[in-house]
Amino acid sequence: MSYEEKFIFEDRTRWQACGEGMKRQIMGYGKDLMLVKIDFEKGAVGTMHTHPHTQSSMVVSGSFEVTIGGETRTLHGGDGYFVAPDVEHGVLCTEKGTLIDTFTPCREDFL
Amino acid sequence: MSYEEKFIFEDRTRWQACGEGMKRQIMGYGKDLMLVKIDFEKGAVGTMHTHPHTQSSMVVSGSFEVTIGGETRTLHGGDGYFVAPDVEHGVLCTEKGTLIDTFTPCREDFL
Repeated sequence: MSYEEKFIFEDRTRWQACGEGMKRQIMGYGKDLMLVKIDFEKGAVGTMHTHPHTQSSMVVSGSFEVTIGGETRTLHGGDGYFVAPDVEHGVLCTEKGTLIDTFTPCREDFL
Repeated sequence: MSYEEKFIFEDRTRWQACGEGMKRQIMGYGKDLMLVKIDFEKGAVGTMHTHPHTQSSMVVSGSFEVTIGGETRTLHGGDGYFVAPDVEHGVLCTEKGTLIDTFTPCREDFL
């Protein structure tokens, strides 16, 4: 897979381990944008962290307790959340499912 | 809903008609990033178009014939596609489903 690859197929894309009970696939990226799919087992934790990238995310399935800048909400399939640069955030998966995380610029540290 | 709103709930977010058999919800945005969910009925067409924004997209469910820069592929749930700025692209829904489209910078024309 490469920058600005047009078509990205799930069954030909590598899964990366990214923590206990979590794995991710990079489903598209260019210098200024990246889309990442993350599968969570129930109880998996995306620990609190920050990054300089802007992030917009959506819950595809399952349920997640999402904390952003000290506020926590429970989100379900179809809900979204937005993280401004350098704002601390994290998730707890309360029902097995999938998140889409998108970033600008690209998370070069994921490549 | 406003710029950089942290939590966006599907059941409190307006659906916008965006073509025959298509409707969308904006599920998060800031000046440099926007995430949009689009539901398609079978046979609905996202007509060929261009924009200066970079786009990274994922099929959540259903099947779509996606054309980018003259190349067409059939994508299913979990697959992704990437559109560089000003490259002509469009989709045909061949099985009812949902796409996630993300853009940088924000599609101000959607607000």
